[in-house]
Amino acid sequence: MKIVLLGTGNVAVHLGPSLKKAGHRFLQVYGRNERSARSLSKKLDCPFATDLGLLQPKADVYLLAVRDEAIPELLPFLPATEALILHTSGSVPLDVLRNFKNTGVLYPLQTLSIHRKIKISAVPFCLEVNRPALKQRLTKLIKPASSNLHWIDSDQRRILHLAAVFANNFSNHLFSISEDLLNENGMDFGLLKPLILETGKKVQTHSPRDMQTGPARRGDSETIEKHLALLSGHPQYAQLYQLLTESIREMNGPRL
Amino acid sequence: MKIVLLGTGNVAVHLGPSLKKAGHRFLQVYGRNERSARSLSKKLDCPFATDLGLLQPKADVYLLAVRDEAIPELLPFLPATEALILHTSGSVPLDVLRNFKNTGVLYPLQTLSIHRKIKISAVPFCLEVNRPALKQRLTKLIKPASSNLHWIDSDQRRILHLAAVFANNFSNHLFSISEDLLNENGMDFGLLKPLILETGKKVQTHSPRDMQTGPARRGDSETIEKHLALLSGHPQYAQLYQLLTESIREMNGPRL
Repeated sequence: MKIVLLGTGNVAVHLGPSLKKAGHRFLQVYGRNERSARSLSKKLDCPFATDLGLLQPKADVYLLAVRDEAIPELLPFLPATEALILHTSGSVPLDVLRNFKNTGVLYPLQTLSIHRKIKISAVPFCLEVNRPALKQRLTKLIKPASSNLHWIDSDQRRILHLAAVFANNFSNHLFSISEDLLNENGMDFGLLKPLILETGKKVQTHSPRDMQTGPARRGDSETIEKHLALLSGHPQYAQLYQLLTESIREMNGPRL
Repeated sequence: MKIVLLGTGNVAVHLGPSLKKAGHRFLQVYGRNERSARSLSKKLDCPFATDLGLLQPKADVYLLAVRDEAIPELLPFLPATEALILHTSGSVPLDVLRNFKNTGVLYPLQTLSIHRKIKISAVPFCLEVNRPALKQRLTKLIKPASSNLHWIDSDQRRILHLAAVFANNFSNHLFSISEDLLNENGMDFGLLKPLILETGKKVQTHSPRDMQTGPARRGDSETIEKHLALLSGHPQYAQLYQLLTESIREMNGPRL
């Protein structure tokens, strides 16, 4: 399929080359930043544009891999076309594309950063289209790159994005708190790395709910009190400790 | 070295066989539960006892791999001896063993469960002894099993245990929340597994603070408001969402 890619950020940089490798052809990359656009266009072996007025009109797919807020800003510049218009956002409903005939979503459920390689074939893609007839077209686009495909509607995708914030952004913040506590006390964060990796591996095969351990799970009030005392210099962390402890107790009940 | 192992739980079951494999000899396993004690004693090729009055008096090491609360209960039954008395707890100070001459701590900083295999050689062990002269003896015990060794005093170890609660217990609870949200909306937790694994892998090479992403990090109030609205049926989760968002903003500042 012939693709015009809009965007040069984390998603574009991972998705573009994977789709090319899967056999698709890029007609053009658009990006506001000339340097990023040129760099990505080289990888995709196609021209680039920094002017929205110069978008190629004859693609099969327009892939909007841009920040959520930028999606509506780009739409007026897309050609009135039978092509498939796709966005890649977890939290923007498909309906934002309602002025076009053939629309869909291609949301990669993975944390993508420019500096880390990701095996795209293992990334779950959440798919949605505005008409059932388009399912085949979207599958044809992405299946050669990843077969981990899931049809998820806009309402479900919002929940999924929220759940991903808990599972990824918030857990990463907890890792930052542990790093902070260690550094403050002359210890290296490296000490916790094997534990963090194992925590992530464990839930690959077990329900996290069943794997819950720790003072809150045991109902070990003595340790909980000691920990809160240690956090007296960090009221924010102490409040989080307390709320997470309550939430574990509510979900799992004390084992006692 | 000749070891008497007290305890048949998660730590004992992982540590015992590893120390045997490393060339040490077990004289005896003690456990309240006869079945667990017998089972572990077979693996360690030694007799077992369920009666504290029958502890072998001639070991080089008494290894107390039991729950925190059980440590003081066992102490009166240990022989008055020159042997090294060790506990394996993250939150109990070394001082609990003050009535003995040669004491120490051997705290494996990893989540150990009976049903998951762990490469002990990759586990960080936090070590402490009551007299510097004992450092060599404790090293001789554990070094053949793992060379990831760290001398950590009781005060640091308390902080480390607290940090591990954030990094492991609390992040696992966030995974449970995401699982709950997905199931409630007809989606499978499997969707999030690659994301969770990558989150754990990323911090192996990068500081989690630098890796922070998401609506809170971006200062994306619109998405935050939408997420809070989605959580209206879960006041506990909404409160956690809010507090974690504030905490990220405080630590990282909005990127804006």
